[in-house]
Order: sequence, then structure tokens, then C-alpha cells
Amino acid sequence: MNDEFLLDTSEARSLYHQYAEKLPVIDYHNHLAAKEVLTDYSYENITELWLRGDPYKHRAMRMCGIEEKYITGNASDYEKFNAWCTVFPRLTGNPLKHWSQMELSMVFNLDIPICTENAQTLWNRLNEMLKDKAYTSRGILSRFNIEYCSPCMLLNDDISGFKDKSAIAPSLRSDDMKNPTPDFIQRLSENTGIHINSIEALKQALGKRFDVFDRAGGKFFDYAADDGFQYKSDDGQNEDRLKKLISDGELSDNDMLYFNSELLRIAYDECAMRGWTVQLHIGALRYTSSRLRRIAGPAGGFAGIGNFDVRHITRLLDDVEGSEHGLARTLLFTLNPAYNEEIAVLCGSYSCDNMPSPVQQGPAWWWCDHYSGITGVLDSISSFGLLYEFIGMTTDSRSVLSFVRHDYFRRVLCAWIGRQKERGIFTEDTDTLGELVKRICCKNAAAAAGIKKEIL
Amino acid sequence: MNDEFLLDTSEARSLYHQYAEKLPVIDYHNHLAAKEVLTDYSYENITELWLRGDPYKHRAMRMCGIEEKYITGNASDYEKFNAWCTVFPRLTGNPLKHWSQMELSMVFNLDIPICTENAQTLWNRLNEMLKDKAYTSRGILSRFNIEYCSPCMLLNDDISGFKDKSAIAPSLRSDDMKNPTPDFIQRLSENTGIHINSIEALKQALGKRFDVFDRAGGKFFDYAADDGFQYKSDDGQNEDRLKKLISDGELSDNDMLYFNSELLRIAYDECAMRGWTVQLHIGALRYTSSRLRRIAGPAGGFAGIGNFDVRHITRLLDDVEGSEHGLARTLLFTLNPAYNEEIAVLCGSYSCDNMPSPVQQGPAWWWCDHYSGITGVLDSISSFGLLYEFIGMTTDSRSVLSFVRHDYFRRVLCAWIGRQKERGIFTEDTDTLGELVKRICCKNAAAAAGIKKEIL
Amino acid sequence: MNDEFLLDTSEARSLYHQYAEKLPVIDYHNHLAAKEVLTDYSYENITELWLRGDPYKHRAMRMCGIEEKYITGNASDYEKFNAWCTVFPRLTGNPLKHWSQMELSMVFNLDIPICTENAQTLWNRLNEMLKDKAYTSRGILSRFNIEYCSPCMLLNDDISGFKDKSAIAPSLRSDDMKNPTPDFIQRLSENTGIHINSIEALKQALGKRFDVFDRAGGKFFDYAADDGFQYKSDDGQNEDRLKKLISDGELSDNDMLYFNSELLRIAYDECAMRGWTVQLHIGALRYTSSRLRRIAGPAGGFAGIGNFDVRHITRLLDDVEGSEHGLARTLLFTLNPAYNEEIAVLCGSYSCDNMPSPVQQGPAWWWCDHYSGITGVLDSISSFGLLYEFIGMTTDSRSVLSFVRHDYFRRVLCAWIGRQKERGIFTEDTDTLGELVKRICCKNAAAAAGIKKEIL
Repeated sequence: MNDEFLLDTSEARSLYHQYAEKLPVIDYHNHLAAKEVLTDYSYENITELWLRGDPYKHRAMRMCGIEEKYITGNASDYEKFNAWCTVFPRLTGNPLKHWSQMELSMVFNLDIPICTENAQTLWNRLNEMLKDKAYTSRGILSRFNIEYCSPCMLLNDDISGFKDKSAIAPSLRSDDMKNPTPDFIQRLSENTGIHINSIEALKQALGKRFDVFDRAGGKFFDYAADDGFQYKSDDGQNEDRLKKLISDGELSDNDMLYFNSELLRIAYDECAMRGWTVQLHIGALRYTSSRLRRIAGPAGGFAGIGNFDVRHITRLLDDVEGSEHGLARTLLFTLNPAYNEEIAVLCGSYSCDNMPSPVQQGPAWWWCDHYSGITGVLDSISSFGLLYEFIGMTTDSRSVLSFVRHDYFRRVLCAWIGRQKERGIFTEDTDTLGELVKRICCKNAAAAAGIKKEIL
Repeated sequence: MNDEFLLDTSEARSLYHQYAEKLPVIDYHNHLAAKEVLTDYSYENITELWLRGDPYKHRAMRMCGIEEKYITGNASDYEKFNAWCTVFPRLTGNPLKHWSQMELSMVFNLDIPICTENAQTLWNRLNEMLKDKAYTSRGILSRFNIEYCSPCMLLNDDISGFKDKSAIAPSLRSDDMKNPTPDFIQRLSENTGIHINSIEALKQALGKRFDVFDRAGGKFFDYAADDGFQYKSDDGQNEDRLKKLISDGELSDNDMLYFNSELLRIAYDECAMRGWTVQLHIGALRYTSSRLRRIAGPAGGFAGIGNFDVRHITRLLDDVEGSEHGLARTLLFTLNPAYNEEIAVLCGSYSCDNMPSPVQQGPAWWWCDHYSGITGVLDSISSFGLLYEFIGMTTDSRSVLSFVRHDYFRRVLCAWIGRQKERGIFTEDTDTLGELVKRICCKNAAAAAGIKKEIL
Repeated sequence: MNDEFLLDTSEARSLYHQYAEKLPVIDYHNHLAAKEVLTDYSYENITELWLRGDPYKHRAMRMCGIEEKYITGNASDYEKFNAWCTVFPRLTGNPLKHWSQMELSMVFNLDIPICTENAQTLWNRLNEMLKDKAYTSRGILSRFNIEYCSPCMLLNDDISGFKDKSAIAPSLRSDDMKNPTPDFIQRLSENTGIHINSIEALKQALGKRFDVFDRAGGKFFDYAADDGFQYKSDDGQNEDRLKKLISDGELSDNDMLYFNSELLRIAYDECAMRGWTVQLHIGALRYTSSRLRRIAGPAGGFAGIGNFDVRHITRLLDDVEGSEHGLARTLLFTLNPAYNEEIAVLCGSYSCDNMPSPVQQGPAWWWCDHYSGITGVLDSISSFGLLYEFIGMTTDSRSVLSFVRHDYFRRVLCAWIGRQKERGIFTEDTDTLGELVKRICCKNAAAAAGIKKEIL
């Protein structure tokens, strides 16, 4: 891979090489597995490392008409690797092409084209390298100058392994707090030693778990506001709903909507008290192909993008702004880029004395994490918001290889700034813009992650 | 017109001249009249050929304040032509300006500016040329290297004239299958000799008509999913609704919604069985000005763009994916470009073993068929989907002159790829990108049209 | 500020300097205070002139985490000015940075960077200048070559002061006509001497006030179609609703929706009769942070962007098109740029003999009034509509300094046209494009403002 990849103006090249390139990585939200970050895991072969858990690649292979057998089925690992090599040349324009080439080049120092003809060679050379200590999970991670890395864990997960891991801290994902089951309540009770028979007890139990995450370095909470997210203000009946959930084992859809909203408010409050950041992931459409849901599971790479009514977000933010501990810092991610401007403007409509950008647009997310998605978010934050406070990239990935995408983001950012300068839209000198680059690539995220020491 | 029109990089010029320019045309969906494609029709004058049936030009003239008299009224053909020449210089930026100049230049070899001053000259010279055999409907069509051209016909239309027309095959439009009348059922019955008193009989009758289209070379079915399209899964009551429609002559809105959905599923199944492609045209808003609807008819050029709930599309696709014959290849067209990304992502959420891109985004459609609309779709398919499988351009037009728009599309495509390369987003060499161009401009559509021979 | 600011092609520079730069300003909609346009007002200090009434700057300061005390609170004017200087360097990319630098440079001839270090110097020098007659409200306005300036006033406002002000004419804003109170009706009655006990009497009273505005040079009416605007056609019960409003003092939400629609139709009719232009401002979301609403008032800079159902606009336009006096010229403004195309296409769906573009898209509005918002609207009008008839810029501002934004708009317009030409999309010569620039920057708005004399 060319050193100047994507850097198409001299300003872009200066900004990247003088400011962006060497910055530490703060990855405040990802889905890395505990086995990969907490232990020094050796990969069986390149298929395990590169393909097995990657819904992006699975999706691309399906789009190319590859039989499911070679994706998640019972074909051999080599056959699966070969299938991936076969579809690779067809991905022109797709971010997977950039990412994969960068992964080969930056991690394995291989600049061999990925294609059927090279499948056997790549398979052999990569597998050979994977036997080396330099290519275990920790070996790979050590290449990326990672200052903070925050895999998300569920509320009741055992996170004791994180305690002594410098730079690695769990973030809290709320998937089982949404539409909670009595079993979830029961486990929370066992985990905290608190008998949960009231909203107050529920709050205490949640708070105890937040404390555990916080002591392990956690600073981020994320919530999937998907499938046409709805929010309801407190109507005073959530105490009854909690009791009903425990006694009957379930709630009506309408009751659950109110109860979910209550849980979200509680979590928000816990975040506000601790200086945590809430990440709202908005706009995913989880139900598309039932067939793929059966094959690949609910996070298997077939989700779509939907519409949503932003007024449910405004009501939530308004309620928490008016609550005792006020707004927690909030990142709004939209999977639908047609809402970029709607979200960017909304972010400027809440404020707290002495907390810059308490609500801000998150980086281009998931399907949107590519050149055009990233520049779209930069356009939107820049024109409607405050680029200076933008928290920048996180991978949201399951793979230790994905940290190359911080480099990808930095290149796109520098290219985009270069173009703004070329057009006369940015009139600042390179040093000033370099400081902006440092904030976006590292400093702002470091502040949110509570990193106090000087890291750059 | 300049040979290098729109080709603003050397890569664009190479791709266009070496790969795109001479490729055969596959026009898989248009509204050409039978008289123009099945017979060798001579045009009375340039107004008949160029203006009379063109809702785009009518709309532009109305937007310029031209009296309706000179558009669809009783002014003379010369007066109408003169009115068109008068508004022409005001269309800077509008695609009609590009298209019309290309039509004059590429078909009539005239590079005279279109304006009031030249109206009389143009009228005389063009009408003179129209007397020549080279400018009959077939004469004009013969200029475009057309390999496949598929005018859409209604289910009950007599399509016997298509039988012997090489390269011209009817596609099936479903306008009278939506909100069907008892009369539609009756005619279908007469056309097929099948007494339609059950869903099964209806299926057989529809299947018989699909067979007739298929034997005439038909490979495409299109459905207008407009005015806030809604879809309902089978609730088991459609048998009753069919009987009620026949006996009562009408259905309630809700019953019709269910019955329309049943008809669409049946049509989908017929397409899947035969390897046809379904085109869903989504997002038109048919009701705007009642006045223009009276003057210009329901397809008269005043339709707007609306919003839609993509979940109705996901349910439809999920139902047909799970049906006996599975998904037919599907093109999703959105008239609202704000949904480009929503549609592009959805396309990747369905898959079939061994059928690449079974659901894919169609090209920029109708009001969006211009430079910025085309590049918008290219951005979207490229970033979220699979450019390599993109089926490319179709005119959707009523005019034999509109085939110049394949050339327009090819120029925009090559310019867009040139820019991707200039920015370093595409890193492939010109030969590789040239193959991509050939797929998008011709090969992918040829495959969908069932063309087996080697055409390039 | 550099003379060539934003002009990044030679075509852009030619168009700007030869055509755009010196054109008179037509500002057909703004919120200037009567004290500033009708009297020669001297500003106490730069904070009063530059910050006190500017919700854009307040918003930016809040986004930067500045305490409310230094925004709208009881800090001194110097402290507020200092706070603004402090946040200024953080605004890279935000239009406020461009605007403020242009204001300093073009009005005060100062090219000093705005930052904490320069706060005291700027405060002293600017305040010194404000003592000069050249920097009173009329002094500042006289710098801008203003041909027509139309501050909006409420229906019952005393507008007698406008009579003798050449170039300054009131436009009519409808804020108190929406959800009208009995008090509004009562004041209208007193203002006009008409006893309002029927829709007919209400019409007459409204007509009398339109006459007063018209005699003062008024030509524009604006309506805030925000918070998910809804419209209802006449159901014949509005006579009863008027009586109910007067007798009961209020209407149900549903009744008010119908009654508001009736009032809007009446206002439309008054506009159509007088050749006025209706401005529909669509898509604002007025309810976000209750806290900021309390602090800053309902127009205090915290509004968001929402979605809307364009069918309510189509019904309104269809109803008025079919009414006795037909369509009044209409500008559709969308605050949500994701609806640019939807609005642009809709505009072409209504027509009147001999009135070009009776419905057209307004310029980039409010939060969208920046480089990317302006070029977005230009793309949209150009591709879907009629650039030639585009009415161009208005400030919509409360500040006499904001007229620099006409210059900003002209630079962006010329840069955008230059790029269209560079790409080969525009093929016209510079003179032809210069005429287009003159229409968009001045002539089209002058025509709407009823300016008959030759102004350029």
C-alpha cells in the first residue's frame, strides 16, 4: 500500500504525516472478544482471524452469490478463504477492499493482490506468520499504539479479567437491558446482592454494576435505539410495571416501551453521575431476511437502515437534561446518512455550562464507515456543529485487525481538510489545522475516556 | 457537441473511448409506443417526434411560464416548437439541456444552438430530414447499436407483433394489476380461456400471460410501488377477496391492499420461476396538482417525490424469499434520492446461493436521471453495495431519441470513476476499471435480459 | 479578508468580479428591528451590535461550553465579548467563522484575528468606531447597496413608520395568525374597524391589513410550517370554529388544525390578488431543550430539524391552485436538506400560464445557510428545477451586519458555477453564465419585490 494512499493534496499529506500518522489510538467502542484482548490468543489459521467472525465479509460474499456453505457452512477453512479471495476483485468501491488491503499491508507487511490466483500463496504465508508470537491477538494489538480500547460487555458479564489490563477497559452495552426478562432481573439481583422489588432497588443494583465497570476503567455506555426507536416520559406507573414483569414474566408492548424508557433514564443518570458517555446507536432495521436471521443470527450482517422520528430522541434528551444529575455526554450515531443534518443540528440544541458539546454526532457508523460516509459526517458536523469537539473514530469491530481503520479515518480526514483548504473554505494555516486533526484523532476521545496524562 | 463532453480527467477519457463508447445498448425498461418499435413510422414533423409525448419537456415549458396552449393546447406544431426553442436557453443545469443537445447532435448531426432565433431554421432543417428514411422510427433506432430493447406492455395487451422483432421484446408493466377491476379479471379470463373463480385459477391465468411475454423474449416485470407503498403478508382471506371483487365489483381500501399484495406475490413467483427480473419503482407521489392531472393525464409530468416506509419492502422481500420459488432478481428504484443509502443497504440483506446481487439498486430513475442523480446512485452502490453487479442504465422513456442517454450515462460513469481514481479511492488500473465499465454499461444487463451469446 | 475568498477557479473569479460583486441587494425576508431600520440607531458597544440578539452566536458559545452567564446572563458586555473571542478559533468549518470575519473585514475594515489575545484590542477599536455616524444602524446599512429590504412585522403591528422609507418595506409574518387567540381577533377588529363575527368579516379585516402592508411596499408573506406541519382542506365547518374560538376562547387541537388551514388559505388568496409571494418555512422542530426554551425564548437558537409529510404541502397548493385567484407565487424553504430534492421536484408540479416558477425552492435556510447548504440547494434546483428563475439569497437575520452574507452567497454561487463549468456540466460561455448570476443574485428577487425600474 502506497504511503500516500488517499492523500490527494499537499495539505493532506502534511497534515497526515506531521500530525495524524503517529497519534495513539483511542477506540472507545468495539466488540472484541474477551479471549482476544484478555489473553494472548493464537489463531488457528487466517480464516479464523480474518473471516470467521466478520459479518461484513460474510455479507460481501453473499452479495457475490457465494454459497452459504463457503461462508458459514461446513466447507473447510481453506475453501472459505479461497471463496473470499475469489470475490475480492469484485469489491471495487466497497470499503472492504480498502480495509482488507490495509490489513494485509500494515499488519502482515504483504502487498500481494487478493484474488483466486494468489489464494494458496496467501493461505500459506499468512498461516505461517500466524504461528509467530508477533501474530497472536496481543501481538497484533501491540502494533497499533493503542492508548485505550473498550470492548463492550453486558451488565451481568463477569468483567474481573479487565482489572489489570492497562489500556483495555470494558464499556457497557445494554442489549439485555432492553426488553428485560425476569431472568435478567434475577441475575442482576444475584450479581449485586440486592433484592430487586422496586425501581429504587433496581437503580441501586444498576449503580453497583456501573461501579464495577467504572473501577475497571469503563467510561462508555451504548444503547441500540433501533427499529424505529420510541421513548416515553415517566407516567408514574413504572413501579407497577416492574412488579408485573417479575410476577407475570412479561409485559405488553406498550408497558415494555415505558419500562425500557425508565431503564434508559436510570442508565443515563448513572452515566451523568460518573462522567461517562452515552452512545445512542440510531436507525438500524434489524428485521429483513428471516432466512439470514436463522443462518447468521441477529447480528449476522443483514441489518438494513430505517427511518426514525427524531422527536423521541428530543424527548429523551430533554427529560434527562431536566433530571437531577443532568445530561450525560451523549454521542448520537445515525445509521441513516439522510439524517446526518437532522442529528448534527439537534446536537447543538442542548448545552451545559462548562461542558463543550454535551450532545454530539458520532462518527460514520457501521455500513456508513467508508470514504463517503466519513466525509458526509465531517461535512455535517463542520457545517452544523463543532468539528473542534468531534470525538472521532471508533472501530465498533469484532476484529483485532480493524484498528487499521483508525489510519483509514485519519487519511480520509486529512484528505477532506485538504480539499476544504483548496476550495478556500478553511483558511487556517497547517499548524492550526494540525491541532484540529490531533483533537479529532485522539485528544477529544482521550478526554471522554478520562485519560488525564499527556499522551501527545 | 464536443467528443470529450463531461470527460474531465484523462482516466475518464480513456475509459470512455476505449471501453464504453461502442458498447451495445441494453434498454431493459422503456415506454416506447408499439407504432414506433414494431412498424417503421414516419414522423409528421419535429414537434411530433420531439415534444408531443414528452412530459419532461412539457414540465419544463410549464415551469418557464409558457401558456398551456403552446404545450398541450391547440397552438400549431410550429408554435409549440418555437415555444420550446424559446425556453431552451433558460434550462442551464437541467438535464433536458444536455439531452436535447445530444439528440440534435448525435441523431441529426446538428450543433445549432436551440433558441428563438434559430427556431425557424431548426424547424425547416429537422422537418426536411424527417422525410428521409434514415429518420423514421426504425431509422433512428438503428443508430444506437441496440442489442435489447424492452417496451413495457400491459398484461392483457396484444403483443403478437413482437414475435419476429429481433432485439425488441415486451416487458410486463403491472399498472392494471394494481387495484384490479372486475373488467381486468374478465379480460384476463378471455385472454387465457381460464375461468377465474379462485386464486389458483388466477395464478394459472397470470402464468399463461407470463408465458406469452416470455416467448416474445420478455424478461422484466415492473411494479409502481408509489404513493406511500404498503404491503401485507397473506392473512388467508384473499380467496374471499377475489370472490368479493368479482361479485361486488369493488373492495374496501384495506381489502384491496391485501389483494394487491397477493397479486404482487403471485407475479413475483412467476418471475422467479422464469428467471425474470422484478423492477420495483418506489417513491412517486402521483397526486399533486389536480389541474395538471386533468390537463395532462396521470402520467403527465407533474408527479412529485414522497417518503415511504422501507419496512413494507422488507416484508415483501422476506415473504417472497421464503416462498416456494424464492426471490426473483429484484431492482429497487427510489425516486427519492434521500433513500439511496437505505435502498443500497437493504439490497445487501437478501441473498441466494449462486445468484449475485439478487436484490440490487436500480439506476437513477426519472426525475433523478441527471448528472447529480447518477453520481449519487454510483456513490451509494459503490459504498454500500456491489458496483461490479450494477445493472446500469435504462431510459424508461417514451421517445426513440432518448437512447442518447445511454451515452450520457456512460460519460457520467467514466467521469465519476476518473474522479474516484484521482482521489485515490479507486486504485485499480485502467484495464480493470474498463472491465467494470463494460459490466455496468452492458454485460450485467445482458445477463438479466437472458442474452447468452457473446456481445462484446 | 482576501478578495478572492472562496473563488477557486478563474471562471468563479470572472463571474464574481464582472457580474456579482457590485449588484444591488434585495433582501426579501429578515427580522431586523424597527429601531434599526426606521431610525438612525447608535449602538452602545460591539456586544450590543454583534452578540446580544444573535441566536447563532449564542448557540455556538453554548456548544463550546461557555457558561450561560456570559451568553445571556448578567456578565458585563466586555466579558461576553471576550467569551465570544475565546470560542471563535474553535469554529473552524462553521459558517459563523466566515460570516464574522467578513463582518469585521467588510464593515469595519479590520482583518484582525478574533481570539482571546485580541479581545481587548478589538473591543476598544470597534467601540471607538461605533461612536462614529458611519457606524449607526443606517450608516452600516448604507454600505450594502440595498435596493429592497423587508423586515417582517406582525399583522397587528403599527407599520406607519415604514411609509417614507425608500427601499425598506415591511413583510408580513404570520406567527400570531397561527393558533390565533380571541385577543388576536379582537386586536384585528380594533385595527380595522371591522366587527369579526364571520369568515367573510375575517377575510375583510385581513384584507384591510394586507392593504396597509401593500401600501407600505410589502410584497412578501411568510408562514412557519413547522413541527410536522399539517393541512386540512375546507370541511365547511370553519364558520362554526370561528364562533367557537370567540365564544369559548379556545379550540380543540383538531379544530385549530382546520381553522389554521382556513386562515392560511385566506392569506394565500390575499397574496394571489396582490401579486405577493408566500414563503413557507418548513421543517423546524421547535421543541428540543425545555431549559433553553426558558432561558432563550422560543426563537433562541435551539430549534432542531424535523421530518414532515410533503402531502400536506401538496394538498395546500392544490387547494389554492383551484381557488378563485389561484396560486400566489410560493417559495418552499426546507430546513431539512434531506428534503431538498423532494421540494425541488414538487415545485415543478404546479404551473400558471405566464408566471414562471410559481412555486419554487427557496434558498438554503437558517441552519443550512452555509457553503455546503447553499451548494446543496443549487444542486437541487439546478438538477430538478429551474436555476434561471431562482430567487436567490435573503438573510432572514436580525442583524444589520448580516448583509455581508449576500456577498458570501455570491461567492459560493460563482464558485459552484465555476466547478460546474470545470466538469463540463455547464457549457455556456461566461457572458451567458454572468446573466444567470445577475438573475439569481438580484433580478429575480427584484421582480418578486415589484421593482419595476431598471436596477442593473
